Amino acid sequence: MRLCRFDDNRLGVVRGAPDALVVHDVTGILEALPAFRYPLPDHDPLIAALPDLRSRIEAMADAATAIPLAGLRLLPPVASPRKIVAAPVNYRLHHEEALADDTIHHSTNILPIDKAGLFLKATSSLIGASDPVVIRFPEARNDHEIELVAVIGARANRVSRHEALSYVAGYAIGLDMTVRGTQERSMRKSCDSYTVLGPWLVTADEIPNPSALDLHLLVNGETRQQTSTANLLRDVAELIEKASAFYTLMPGDLLFTGTPEGVAPVKPGDVMTARITGIGQMEIAVR
Amino acid sequence: MRLCRFDDNRLGVVRGAPDALVVHDVTGILEALPAFRYPLPDHDPLIAALPDLRSRIEAMADAATAIPLAGLRLLPPVASPRKIVAAPVNYRLHHEEALADDTIHHSTNILPIDKAGLFLKATSSLIGASDPVVIRFPEARNDHEIELVAVIGARANRVSRHEALSYVAGYAIGLDMTVRGTQERSMRKSCDSYTVLGPWLVTADEIPNPSALDLHLLVNGETRQQTSTANLLRDVAELIEKASAFYTLMPGDLLFTGTPEGVAPVKPGDVMTARITGIGQMEIAVR
Repeated sequence: MRLCRFDDNRLGVVRGAPDALVVHDVTGILEALPAFRYPLPDHDPLIAALPDLRSRIEAMADAATAIPLAGLRLLPPVASPRKIVAAPVNYRLHHEEALADDTIHHSTNILPIDKAGLFLKATSSLIGASDPVVIRFPEARNDHEIELVAVIGARANRVSRHEALSYVAGYAIGLDMTVRGTQERSMRKSCDSYTVLGPWLVTADEIPNPSALDLHLLVNGETRQQTSTANLLRDVAELIEKASAFYTLMPGDLLFTGTPEGVAPVKPGDVMTARITGIGQMEIAVR
Repeated sequence: MRLCRFDDNRLGVVRGAPDALVVHDVTGILEALPAFRYPLPDHDPLIAALPDLRSRIEAMADAATAIPLAGLRLLPPVASPRKIVAAPVNYRLHHEEALADDTIHHSTNILPIDKAGLFLKATSSLIGASDPVVIRFPEARNDHEIELVAVIGARANRVSRHEALSYVAGYAIGLDMTVRGTQERSMRKSCDSYTVLGPWLVTADEIPNPSALDLHLLVNGETRQQTSTANLLRDVAELIEKASAFYTLMPGDLLFTGTPEGVAPVKPGDVMTARITGIGQMEIAVR
């Protein structure tokens, strides 16, 4: 199942061939979620309820009229993640390009992933596929970084890599937009609009092997990044093991798995096209 | 006003002398907050509503019976922050001790704060004053770090230091518990229970000058850290300017302002006493 959020916080199921995608509006299912005043829950309520609601969502989609996807404004498919976890230098060739280029490393010591650990991105930086990335520091180098994103589906505390994939609700395409500089990654990758998630969530049953997906990022139609997730140094399961060794992952938490080589600057006016096999494609404007 | 959360998500106003503190239960005011299903708000609903609700909270407290504070279980005074921002090496003597001690720096390059920027802590690591810090990696060095915490009260995007303090709802004591190692701060300071906030929130009107507060941390009754926030390299206003240059701060976001010299390991069985003048005192168990 492909789940999208669109327009005024509506929920939809995406169906159809890539050149004729339609959305079946299932917003009514949100009435089945619990209401909260204070405190708010420590997880994303829709992702937490997905196992219980899935068959009702499918049935509601069957009964709903199909609307063309084109023209809808896509929002982040996970509305309320509490944590965005991300892997640095998780493709060998990207680590090598980062070490070789002082406009990437800025004389900071770029440790390998097993020493650097994972970092956090601010949830306030999250946007969907129809919103533009707004360059926050035009005088700095601002790079695109395409990544496979795993959406956590269940509470995961000290999970081993062998069972880790059973904690994944689904996958999406992510852009980990990055200001280069000397600051900690958790700051310079957290500018407003610097975390793109889209175009929709593909549930995990449709992607049995997340280590065999082709990633492709183009800027203004020219290829910049292209690889397979087979080249990840630490795969999705290992990253979940690493993260959950430090903290409890909750339903709706996002795990950005790292970007391959080919990172490069973007500037206002550029259009980024991001594709991952088995998920889809999105076009993101830079302003 | 001193606002606390306690027991089963109750809200209270703390009054009385330090040796005879009482709580007036104002939980009923939470009914005035809006209810949410999906998406959740991008801010803490109580902190966002505080300016509107304050006079009603005071009146409700006047009418409520006083219960002794002793014996209540204190929860984090801000229930649902969306971001926890923290300042590294923001006291000169702490930066010097970090550079001098390889069990602190672990051969990572400890840049000064103006180069390192700020980092994020996971909201899943947040606990209140009555909960224990549970050591996640007993084989590593796990340090206490007492800090003044500013709670953001209003949406703050690109705010100058000159107006920054008007965006603060109040202050609390924070412990930025830390596993030493090579990982990014946003990982090794985000273990479950490694962010303590308490004992309550003191509204900003009671602390006109956050740069003149004495901090004191004792372990098992012995002083480990003691300084004044006058020694902060970058004060609360400058930190808000720095943070809001990168991302929008929202009501309820927490700003940990950095720890002074004297950081040292704790082990299960220890008791940490943390005091800040004008706020209060809390005792935190280590397990």
